[in-house]
Amino acid sequence: MFADMRDASGTVLNEMAHHFGPWVRRMLAESRYAGWITSDGERPVASAGLLILDWAPHFLDPACDRRGYILNIFVEPDYRRRGLAAALTKECMAEAKRRGIGVIALHASKKGQPVYEKLGFKSSNEMLYIEPASD
Amino acid sequence: MFADMRDASGTVLNEMAHHFGPWVRRMLAESRYAGWITSDGERPVASAGLLILDWAPHFLDPACDRRGYILNIFVEPDYRRRGLAAALTKECMAEAKRRGIGVIALHASKKGQPVYEKLGFKSSNEMLYIEPASD
Repeated sequence: MFADMRDASGTVLNEMAHHFGPWVRRMLAESRYAGWITSDGERPVASAGLLILDWAPHFLDPACDRRGYILNIFVEPDYRRRGLAAALTKECMAEAKRRGIGVIALHASKKGQPVYEKLGFKSSNEMLYIEPASD
Repeated sequence: MFADMRDASGTVLNEMAHHFGPWVRRMLAESRYAGWITSDGERPVASAGLLILDWAPHFLDPACDRRGYILNIFVEPDYRRRGLAAALTKECMAEAKRRGIGVIALHASKKGQPVYEKLGFKSSNEMLYIEPASD
């Protein structure tokens, strides 16, 4: 997915992958991550994940101390434009609702934005600070 | 802070406050929240909080499984335009750095946006879904 986005070097992606495995196993064990894979026969062709964040009770969802975060939405190039990303996003949204979570965040690529807009997502006022790499 | 923003009704704010207290005590006990209060003599006049989120290792910070989230930045009206919000934000950023966290998020009001921009924050591509209230 990230290689497809071409936003990071191979070295950085390898380092990320090395840390992602143990992290996602811990989150799955603690019921704080749910993942979906769409298959065509034996071949996995699309994926999505929902991370459950501890979040400050907020007026948008005043009795809830969690927020959903959708990540790792990816569809293999030759399976795009068939609604797979939207279907997987709906699975994530349904799982968040089952867990009593009323607010879900994600970071959208330019291509993904219209898909999420149709499902009711709106651009937020989030700002990010990214510490410059030290090397 | 939220009453000042006039974004939510008193009932919703009361419900939020009721849930925020136990939540923040739990997060403090788990070293996942740090809070600052600026005082003028005995009087608290400004505040800020840093929440430590479990986050998927990402190419922006490939060896880190946490992300910082700055919240509850508030300055009493007659103490504004003196740099208190910027000073508190810098405290949060320094604390995140001490904890080895390279990415920090926040949600900025229109008034806050230029303050955070000066400190290196940039608008993100986050989108939010907010479940419609059921009542």
